[in-house]
Amino acid sequence: MWGNAVPNRAAQQELKRQAIIRAAARVFSRRGSHGAKLDDVAERLGVSTAALYRYVSNKNDLILACHEEAMEIADKALTAGEEAGDTGLEKIYLGLRNYLLEMMAVLGVPALIMEENALVGDAAERIYGLRDDYERRLRALVVEGQRDGSIIAVEPKIAVFMLLGTMHWVAKWYREDGAWSADDVSDAIIELVTRSLAAKPPKTLESKLHVNAEPGTAGKSR
Amino acid sequence: MWGNAVPNRAAQQELKRQAIIRAAARVFSRRGSHGAKLDDVAERLGVSTAALYRYVSNKNDLILACHEEAMEIADKALTAGEEAGDTGLEKIYLGLRNYLLEMMAVLGVPALIMEENALVGDAAERIYGLRDDYERRLRALVVEGQRDGSIIAVEPKIAVFMLLGTMHWVAKWYREDGAWSADDVSDAIIELVTRSLAAKPPKTLESKLHVNAEPGTAGKSR
Repeated sequence: MWGNAVPNRAAQQELKRQAIIRAAARVFSRRGSHGAKLDDVAERLGVSTAALYRYVSNKNDLILACHEEAMEIADKALTAGEEAGDTGLEKIYLGLRNYLLEMMAVLGVPALIMEENALVGDAAERIYGLRDDYERRLRALVVEGQRDGSIIAVEPKIAVFMLLGTMHWVAKWYREDGAWSADDVSDAIIELVTRSLAAKPPKTLESKLHVNAEPGTAGKSR
Repeated sequence: MWGNAVPNRAAQQELKRQAIIRAAARVFSRRGSHGAKLDDVAERLGVSTAALYRYVSNKNDLILACHEEAMEIADKALTAGEEAGDTGLEKIYLGLRNYLLEMMAVLGVPALIMEENALVGDAAERIYGLRDDYERRLRALVVEGQRDGSIIAVEPKIAVFMLLGTMHWVAKWYREDGAWSADDVSDAIIELVTRSLAAKPPKTLESKLHVNAEPGTAGKSR
C-alpha cells in the first residue's frame, strides 16, 4: 500500500518507541534520571503523558531501554571496527570512535550511562552482563594488539578502563550547542586516548581540533 | 595539658568533622547520594544520628563538604606536582597521581565527584567555580609542556578532559577489597594516560600492573 511510503502499523510502533527512547535519554542526561519525570519526556515529544504510557509502563522501563540501546550501539560499532581494522589498535580506534559518534547522534551525550544507581534488580543485572561482555571484547582486542605488535605491553583491564572513562566523561563536558561538532570531538578524543596504547605512537596528532589548537589559549574559558 | 597528647576542644571538633566527611564520602559513593541517608553515615561512624546533627545541618551540607574536601585534595596535589616536576608533563603526572592516591586513601573511591546533580544552588556554583579553576591550572600545564617540549601539539581542553575522565572513572571499577592496591592503580592508570601526551612516549610502561600483566588473561573476569 502507498508503495511502502508509509510504514505499517508494527513499524510505526517501533519508530515511536525509538523516538521515546531518544527523547528520554536526552531528558535523563540533562536532569539526571532521579530528577526527570515521564512528563518531561512527553513534553519533549509533544505528546500527552497518557500517550507515552501506551509504550512504556514506567520510568524504570525507560531507563532500562536507554541502557539497552546504548549497549546495542556500542556492540554494533565494535563489530564494525573489528571488520574494518587491520590491527588490534585500529579495531579499538574505529570501534570506539563510531560508538561515541553514533551515541551522541542518537541518544545525545551519554550521561545516563554514568548513573548505574538508577538501575535496579534483574534489569541492573542484565545491563551489567552486557557491559561485562563489551569490556571483555575490548580487552581481547588489547591482547590482539599486543600480539600483532600494534599495542605496547599493558594491563588490558587498566587500558580498557582508561578508554571507557575518557569516552563516558564526554557526557560531563560536551554541549550539543557548543563550537565543537560531535564528529570533531569523537575524532580528537579517541585519537588522543588510543595514542597511549600505540607501540609506535605517531609524532603528531592529525584530527582537526588538535591541529587547529593554539598553545596559549588554555586560560580562556570554554 | 597532657603534653598535647589529647587534642584541645577545637581540634577535636575538627577531627570529628573530618571523620564525618570521610564516612559520608564512602557511604555516598557506594549508594549514590540520592539513596544514602544521614542514618547510614551515623551507623558507619558508630554514633547516633542526633550526634551527627551537631556537626552538619543536613545531607546537602555534607555532600558539599565532600566536594570541597575533594577539590582541596586535588589542588594540594597539583601544587606539590608543580613544585616537584621539571616539565609540564611531569607536573601533570605527579599532580594527578598524588590526587588519585590521596583521594582513594582519604575519601575512598571518588564516585561522588561524578554526581554533580546532587549539588544545588549557590553550593553548586561554588564547586563548579573551584572545578573550573582546577581545570584551568591543568590546561596551563599542558601549554607549559608544549612550550618546554615535553608534550605534543594537542588541544589542551581535550587533553584535560581525557585525564579527568580516566581518573574519575576509577570510581566505577575500583574495589578497595580487590587485588590491586590504590598505589598500584594510581601508578598504572596515570602512567598510561599521560603517555598519550608525551612528545617522546616511553617504549615500555614501568608501573607494576603493566609490567606484571600477561597478555592472554584478558578473558578472565576481574
